Amino acid sequence: MFYLGYDIGGTNIAAGIVDDTFAIRARSTAPFPLGEPYEATVDLMLSQMEQMCAQLGIACSELACIGIAVPGSIDPSCQRVINAHNLRFYDVPLVQAVKDRLPEEVPVYLANDANAATLAELRAGALKGCSTGVLMTLGTGVGGGLILNGQLFNGGMNNGVELGHMILQHNGPACTCGANGCLETLCSATWLVQQGKRAVEEYPNSHIAAAAQNDIRRVDAKTVIDCAKAGDAVALAIFARYVSQLSDAVCSIIALLDPEVIAIGGGVSHAGNFLFGPLRKQVDATCFFGMHHGKIVPAVMGNDAGIVGAAMLGYR
Amino acid sequence: MFYLGYDIGGTNIAAGIVDDTFAIRARSTAPFPLGEPYEATVDLMLSQMEQMCAQLGIACSELACIGIAVPGSIDPSCQRVINAHNLRFYDVPLVQAVKDRLPEEVPVYLANDANAATLAELRAGALKGCSTGVLMTLGTGVGGGLILNGQLFNGGMNNGVELGHMILQHNGPACTCGANGCLETLCSATWLVQQGKRAVEEYPNSHIAAAAQNDIRRVDAKTVIDCAKAGDAVALAIFARYVSQLSDAVCSIIALLDPEVIAIGGGVSHAGNFLFGPLRKQVDATCFFGMHHGKIVPAVMGNDAGIVGAAMLGYR
Repeated sequence: MFYLGYDIGGTNIAAGIVDDTFAIRARSTAPFPLGEPYEATVDLMLSQMEQMCAQLGIACSELACIGIAVPGSIDPSCQRVINAHNLRFYDVPLVQAVKDRLPEEVPVYLANDANAATLAELRAGALKGCSTGVLMTLGTGVGGGLILNGQLFNGGMNNGVELGHMILQHNGPACTCGANGCLETLCSATWLVQQGKRAVEEYPNSHIAAAAQNDIRRVDAKTVIDCAKAGDAVALAIFARYVSQLSDAVCSIIALLDPEVIAIGGGVSHAGNFLFGPLRKQVDATCFFGMHHGKIVPAVMGNDAGIVGAAMLGYR
Repeated sequence: MFYLGYDIGGTNIAAGIVDDTFAIRARSTAPFPLGEPYEATVDLMLSQMEQMCAQLGIACSELACIGIAVPGSIDPSCQRVINAHNLRFYDVPLVQAVKDRLPEEVPVYLANDANAATLAELRAGALKGCSTGVLMTLGTGVGGGLILNGQLFNGGMNNGVELGHMILQHNGPACTCGANGCLETLCSATWLVQQGKRAVEEYPNSHIAAAAQNDIRRVDAKTVIDCAKAGDAVALAIFARYVSQLSDAVCSIIALLDPEVIAIGGGVSHAGNFLFGPLRKQVDATCFFGMHHGKIVPAVMGNDAGIVGAAMLGYR
């Protein structure tokens, strides 16, 4: 069987047709038509579908289902995009719009992109076989999703899962959501960037300042991580604080859900064992269940998580 | 059918026989034999059982099941009490010990008391009919439990649920568990007591100081709450901080699980609408899902939660 997945981002619409082994058999990327009415996006999606089906020599009606992942909130019936700011999609009936354009009846599903990525990790990645699992993605923000009872969990009231907005620091830094001290304010790549920029200004002789040529605009999370790996004391101190914050976040989730696996993805996770080694050590030392907690592992689906997860939304 | 539940505490063994309507039909209380070998507890439990069965005119073999709630951690197979410090029970094979003394084969179940209370709220209380629900108990510590998929959830690895040890304040106050800034350090009755004592010392002319006759040993959570209700500025400031901390805790759980109902019990919940009114208002203002979050309601099972929940451990 073939499953079509779309991962719509503010830059590109990435699409793929996935088979029963969760392998991507055809791919297509189109620039996202930012600022145009959503119908322009649907046009592009349809032509991507036709092109990929042709490439595989199948009719569109042979698709078992179509899934769409978007970076934003979805209505509880999973039919409309309520708010996807990066796409400028506000209350868009995306499922119906795609269905209306299909030559044949094919089921169409819609999900938040973090949920789609979590489903991809469940089917084919780091959460395979889990009854209770968590995906955390550490990027510009912090996203993720939950597997409960062996299935993707979309919140008890279908509002979704927003683990980046768990509160980790009462009265902490202001978050874009309006609350303070959200996990996202302390565990995102953005936190590392902010601290790196401050270090460039405060410690002009640090390795970080040199790496950024004393220009704060050149500081990204990788700058801080690379300088820490190279042994720079300032960068090491920032990274140690980051690990300590992330450990508290992980311990908080473990205290509530005691998951079998916590998979961590996103840009910061590319630090590899330099992150996972000290993180596991600190969680072992802090976690209520001592060392009896579940595994903390890198997510494995990478950039394909959205496509594969979207394609799998209708997989049973 | 009849179901026997034991709620073992460091002071008393409370027991009851519950019917299919979740009503307690017979009760028995015995002083907990603190410091004696656990067999002394089992002796008492058996004589409570015989006495209650006699009272109802049934044979012990007519019990559908027996459930035991203890304040502590249970092994993943739910057979042994790993650590119940208040009972001085360390690795006690309680299920087998009770089974060995039963005249007939009756199933015996064991659970943490917070889990039992959560199950009682699910079957007969504030979480009735929930697919996703949470019980938080605000007492000396903070306990609670989760209903997921309409069933009591004991952690993904069966380590239990320790929502009191979610982390709410990175680098916050030291918790008895060894971590810092656990929810329990900021949302327990104990926090209110600590702040009340400090207020008595710092503000000898406050209403709190008068209520406690300037003796910090007389301060309990009710002192602070009653003085806040009476309009004392110092007590009101403490209580407002408490509500703000509790709101963050509730928002954190909502961000992760989006439950249909969060039921709040324990001593502090007796503040009633004086607590629930401002708490709901602050959660509405802070929560990621805005006002679309689930209900925040008082728990209703009170002191019977342990007995009823224990009795229901084997109810299917």
